Amino acid sequence: MKLATLRTDGTTRAVRLDGDVLVDLGVPDVGALLAEEGWAERAAAATGVRYPVEGADFAPLVPAPSKVVCVGLNYRNHIQEMGRDLPEHPTLFAKFADSLIGAGDDIVRPDETAEFDWEVELAVVVGAPARRARGAEAEAAIAGFTVLNDITCRDWQFRTREWLQGKTWDSTTPVGPFLVTPDELPGGVRPSLDVRLLVDGEVMQSDSTGDLLFDPVDLVEYVSTVVRLNPGDIIATGTPGGVGHARRPERYLVGGETVVTEIEGIGRLENRVVKEKSA
Amino acid sequence: MKLATLRTDGTTRAVRLDGDVLVDLGVPDVGALLAEEGWAERAAAATGVRYPVEGADFAPLVPAPSKVVCVGLNYRNHIQEMGRDLPEHPTLFAKFADSLIGAGDDIVRPDETAEFDWEVELAVVVGAPARRARGAEAEAAIAGFTVLNDITCRDWQFRTREWLQGKTWDSTTPVGPFLVTPDELPGGVRPSLDVRLLVDGEVMQSDSTGDLLFDPVDLVEYVSTVVRLNPGDIIATGTPGGVGHARRPERYLVGGETVVTEIEGIGRLENRVVKEKSA
Repeated sequence: MKLATLRTDGTTRAVRLDGDVLVDLGVPDVGALLAEEGWAERAAAATGVRYPVEGADFAPLVPAPSKVVCVGLNYRNHIQEMGRDLPEHPTLFAKFADSLIGAGDDIVRPDETAEFDWEVELAVVVGAPARRARGAEAEAAIAGFTVLNDITCRDWQFRTREWLQGKTWDSTTPVGPFLVTPDELPGGVRPSLDVRLLVDGEVMQSDSTGDLLFDPVDLVEYVSTVVRLNPGDIIATGTPGGVGHARRPERYLVGGETVVTEIEGIGRLENRVVKEKSA
Repeated sequence: MKLATLRTDGTTRAVRLDGDVLVDLGVPDVGALLAEEGWAERAAAATGVRYPVEGADFAPLVPAPSKVVCVGLNYRNHIQEMGRDLPEHPTLFAKFADSLIGAGDDIVRPDETAEFDWEVELAVVVGAPARRARGAEAEAAIAGFTVLNDITCRDWQFRTREWLQGKTWDSTTPVGPFLVTPDELPGGVRPSLDVRLLVDGEVMQSDSTGDLLFDPVDLVEYVSTVVRLNPGDIIATGTPGGVGHARRPERYLVGGETVVTEIEGIGRLENRVVKEKSA
């Protein structure tokens, strides 16, 4: 099952993808859907208004998650190519919900940064409350997966030792378009899928989620040890090699580019990078 | 004006302190109040149900802020006693709303930590939407101040280079009891107030908010450059010297202690530290 949050008539609707149409699920967004027990059955059975997927305008998949937890270095070959040892624990940092935008929205580059960078990430979407979940309970807490581009202002990320201020710029992080349930994916809750990021058609990142050191279930177990996970919460699982900051010479987004962020079987973000209009 | 969120009859109510009574403001919590334009006039004029302040059970002042932004080292004399240079930019990290508890709630020490520590902090509560606010606009975005104890699992804080996982343990961070508006404070939006933290009556931290390197207005300007601030958002301004981790020998909360966290003219948190009941 593929679910999304559609913008229509000045509001949003949760929808299910059926071939080339989107079927209204009777709730305003995927976050509201996931908050209901039995959401999967309800979503599968819904027979609401139908919208064409062609030309659809997607909102952030979950517009206001209670938390977006991001993971630092998590692709084995990227860690090793950087000459680092594999870490014992995942590195976690936060984004606030106000950083999220839709799958086709423009990414507005803030005037305050000179180092605006990309990061393709497989994102876990939580579908059930979880605290200190282990094993089957952690697996069952995963509603599915989506695509997230963890857009980062590197100069702000490294101003201080904490990354938050480089990571949570307002309305810069596309997420979506679809939540894909694990039953649709090879590997289920531990999917092995190609991830890619392209800038103006040039492949910048290309790897497989099978290379993740901490897989989605590990991350649900770890994060839920610290703090409860709520339906709609998002865990961005980290990015592979090929970010602009690590290139020689460094490459950054300056405005005018088109960034495509895609994961096999899950979906594709396509965003123009635009310069900020002075107020 | 002093405002709070009171637990009563299985729900919560926003209230105003009038002498020894709490007056119902007609909305469920201070977050809901602040989301309304003209909240200050409404709160001042309300004449709802009255509850005694004696024995009041306070919820987190804002139960579900869209963001809790915390500041690292920010007291000049503490930075200097640690032998560090004064930083050019504030260090920011996040807590999630699920970490918050009420002013008198028990702090449950997680079994997973051996280094459970305290941090008294002056917290700014946002009262108006703000993005890239400067000067008078940043000042006007401050609804008032409250007290926050940034309880920290040091072992988890330092597992990786990002602090989040030591800072956002579920239901461990007391905040409240009162939002005090700037007109009630000497210094207004840049108040100079004594802050103290006591463990079982022993003073562990004692300083003045007048020593803050980045004052509340600076922080609203800085954070709102990165991401919008919404009514109810909380900025915890950092802690002075005297935390358990910096003592020789180190001192941590093990369970059984009473922690008092107080700021002159703003309020007092009093929390018992209790061991976790095994599930």
